[in-house]
Amino acid sequence: MPNPLDDARYELALANRIIAHEGVLDGFGHVSMRHPTDPARYLLARSRSPELIEPSDILEFTLDSEPVSASGVTLYGERVIHGCIYQARPDVRAVCHHHSPAVLPFCATGVEYQPVFHMGAVIGTAAPFWDSRDDFGDTNMLVIKPEEGRSLAKALGSHWMVLMRRHGATLVGTTVRELVFRTVYSHVNAEIQLRSMMIGKIGPLSHGEAELTGPYQLQPKPMGRAWEYWTTRLKKSGELPRARRSGKSARRTRRPR
Amino acid sequence: MPNPLDDARYELALANRIIAHEGVLDGFGHVSMRHPTDPARYLLARSRSPELIEPSDILEFTLDSEPVSASGVTLYGERVIHGCIYQARPDVRAVCHHHSPAVLPFCATGVEYQPVFHMGAVIGTAAPFWDSRDDFGDTNMLVIKPEEGRSLAKALGSHWMVLMRRHGATLVGTTVRELVFRTVYSHVNAEIQLRSMMIGKIGPLSHGEAELTGPYQLQPKPMGRAWEYWTTRLKKSGELPRARRSGKSARRTRRPR
Amino acid sequence: MPNPLDDARYELALANRIIAHEGVLDGFGHVSMRHPTDPARYLLARSRSPELIEPSDILEFTLDSEPVSASGVTLYGERVIHGCIYQARPDVRAVCHHHSPAVLPFCATGVEYQPVFHMGAVIGTAAPFWDSRDDFGDTNMLVIKPEEGRSLAKALGSHWMVLMRRHGATLVGTTVRELVFRTVYSHVNAEIQLRSMMIGKIGPLSHGEAELTGPYQLQPKPMGRAWEYWTTRLKKSGELPRARRSGKSARRTRRPR
Amino acid sequence: MPNPLDDARYELALANRIIAHEGVLDGFGHVSMRHPTDPARYLLARSRSPELIEPSDILEFTLDSEPVSASGVTLYGERVIHGCIYQARPDVRAVCHHHSPAVLPFCATGVEYQPVFHMGAVIGTAAPFWDSRDDFGDTNMLVIKPEEGRSLAKALGSHWMVLMRRHGATLVGTTVRELVFRTVYSHVNAEIQLRSMMIGKIGPLSHGEAELTGPYQLQPKPMGRAWEYWTTRLKKSGELPRARRSGKSARRTRRPR
Repeated sequence: MPNPLDDARYELALANRIIAHEGVLDGFGHVSMRHPTDPARYLLARSRSPELIEPSDILEFTLDSEPVSASGVTLYGERVIHGCIYQARPDVRAVCHHHSPAVLPFCATGVEYQPVFHMGAVIGTAAPFWDSRDDFGDTNMLVIKPEEGRSLAKALGSHWMVLMRRHGATLVGTTVRELVFRTVYSHVNAEIQLRSMMIGKIGPLSHGEAELTGPYQLQPKPMGRAWEYWTTRLKKSGELPRARRSGKSARRTRRPR
Repeated sequence: MPNPLDDARYELALANRIIAHEGVLDGFGHVSMRHPTDPARYLLARSRSPELIEPSDILEFTLDSEPVSASGVTLYGERVIHGCIYQARPDVRAVCHHHSPAVLPFCATGVEYQPVFHMGAVIGTAAPFWDSRDDFGDTNMLVIKPEEGRSLAKALGSHWMVLMRRHGATLVGTTVRELVFRTVYSHVNAEIQLRSMMIGKIGPLSHGEAELTGPYQLQPKPMGRAWEYWTTRLKKSGELPRARRSGKSARRTRRPR
Repeated sequence: MPNPLDDARYELALANRIIAHEGVLDGFGHVSMRHPTDPARYLLARSRSPELIEPSDILEFTLDSEPVSASGVTLYGERVIHGCIYQARPDVRAVCHHHSPAVLPFCATGVEYQPVFHMGAVIGTAAPFWDSRDDFGDTNMLVIKPEEGRSLAKALGSHWMVLMRRHGATLVGTTVRELVFRTVYSHVNAEIQLRSMMIGKIGPLSHGEAELTGPYQLQPKPMGRAWEYWTTRLKKSGELPRARRSGKSARRTRRPR
Repeated sequence: MPNPLDDARYELALANRIIAHEGVLDGFGHVSMRHPTDPARYLLARSRSPELIEPSDILEFTLDSEPVSASGVTLYGERVIHGCIYQARPDVRAVCHHHSPAVLPFCATGVEYQPVFHMGAVIGTAAPFWDSRDDFGDTNMLVIKPEEGRSLAKALGSHWMVLMRRHGATLVGTTVRELVFRTVYSHVNAEIQLRSMMIGKIGPLSHGEAELTGPYQLQPKPMGRAWEYWTTRLKKSGELPRARRSGKSARRTRRPR
């Protein structure tokens, strides 16, 4: 019998793997979702590289980023990124933090991210910048303390993406699939923007175009087309997570080698 | 007994997969061909990522971009790109619309595409620009309404490629193989042009050279060499479409895993 | 019993595949070698993409680029590149013509190729430019006529690499392995030079360094290390040519799937 | 019964393969470690491309870079890089020399490497430059003579990375895993720095940030996460070295094809 929590764990493992497989995440970064039935909790893997995450790696946390059950496993140091955003943004049901090689040049220079083709409007019309030095001076640059998480969530405000100076980016979505779609296509847009700036002056989308285009792309039809594409690519590479139901039948349906 | 429509569907599925496999198409974009025996119809897949398309996904449309049979499946929103071009250009038998990462920097900046090596002349001597804002102001940037499709077809005129500002490109051919060849090598040329502009001032082909070179490359011999190369690469990756004939024997000859 | 011609055909098929697998050649370009026992002939494949070439595709040509036996198969249009260089350069035993995406930016801009790290000195201290427009005006840009091949061979002179404006490059070697080594590492150096020019002013090797470094790299030890590396990579990808001896045993030892 | 030397050989073969698989090393470059029980010796492979190295390829050397046992196999020409650094730096237990395409643009231009995101601080706060011309004038550019190795070790000083003009880089670590982590992430940072410089003025980490960030990343937890990621990627590609114990059982557990 399907179980919403089992389904959520599988979906989240899949989201981690898709974002890694499409080149946004490497050994670091993480993806979470709000608990499917308890909005005061969220789901996040134990400390492990996103491309390797199995449903069984996914744990429950309170919105203060404390694990619900003591498990003895190592946890991500930066999980307050997730908890503080879920506290500040009731509309958000999924969060991704990454160090994409396409987005980092904007984080290292302060050049503004701009939608330069229609898919780039998945982040809305603009993405704010957050610089940990503004509130905290010299740190180890990670977002570990609750006050650091709150500062980042405040910078995100009501946006869908926040760039973190000399660090990376954090994105949010109202569903896991929307988050994956926004994360992959903002990475693609950043790459196109960077390449465009090498040859000329960019003419980004107008404000009106960005307002009309983003919501259109975020409808179930285009997002579903991309989701089938990305999961098929994972499957062909033998990278799907293990079957979502535990027990004997799950072992029989593990991905073939 | 072979059937021209079955053969066409297989060829079109193959074209979709080649253009995706060579890095021009990702989860979005689409490729169509005119119906092999009825020039008042065209063939295009249901809404699905190009790399996944099977012959059985391919449907018939009138030149007004209405499906010939009600099927209940989801259709591409931008199919008027195809229908309007087939209406305006009786010589065109295949159309591709894409968002190539090599071509998009030209669409985002307005920098002119220029043949910078002999293969770049597959588009002819020049590619016009189309900006949806000129006729329609702020839109969701997609080409969905018949008047949008007609505007794009008008901008294409008698050319083989039209760049779409902040969106992508659309290419046409007199055969499916010519379209694939033109689409892949204009993408390669755009990448070379972009990289060339990073280190110096480009010296493109002269008008006379482009006029002599394009038709030479578009002969059956070089196009056949590339076609064997691209289909072999697909085959080695286990990405060929399913066998073109339906029924029991087709199931036996589906691509091995 | 091994046969020098069979061994040569296998070596040449391997060279074609290595240069393609390492990203220098795509569907076009070609690699030849002088006949192992008759210096008045050379070996070159029938018209086929380099990555697909089997020993059985390789034919014999006179130095006038006429096939020794009528075979009915399609031939490369540009084979005079090979014949004219073998005529002009008795020391040359292998030739490669390519359109590498790393080298083409230099061909499109006229920026000088320079060894920017020690491996870049495999071409010697400099590579001349050849522009077909100088001798022939507007053409289809291919090197098809004997006078075009002679003009290119003259521009090459006593060098090891000649850049062809808006077209590609041609390299030569005293052995097949030396040619492969020079072709791959000049492509790598071009990529490094291009990337270096994006961030600052390059400080290339001094003339004295280039003179000392190139010959050191072209010794059997480093070339052998690279050859083992490249052939192992081909083998892991299932891309080795078919076994070199024809007949029943060859069929048994074809590369496993 | 496990044996420290066997374990060390396996770990070193793995380190060679990871650094190659992640795109830092190609056919050339090498990785060594200090002998696990005798600090007056070090372990380094016979002359072979890093991606192909098996535990059985790994030999013992004195700190004068003489092989401990005559073996008849070919040795790397540049092994004094390793020996001279182990002599000068008792704290160093692992050394990597490479020609990374991300780092070479800095070596060819003299542009300073700077940590532009938190992971870039794995090298510490700065990396010195060494130019073989300063001490030796025109050479074949390789580090072969003991005095060349000593000059390089002197330039490295107490740092963790030294850039070698027109040649590559050499990195050191207090463990093999730290060396691998530093080598891969300094390569990633160099790529991000290069891409950032293409679009704007970089704002690197402050000195205080680099001092706090580097040691944080080099803790067992984040390094372990990356190590699991990289070894899993190797395993999925069928690229793990052969099993670490010799004999019958080892042959049974060799990596499956």
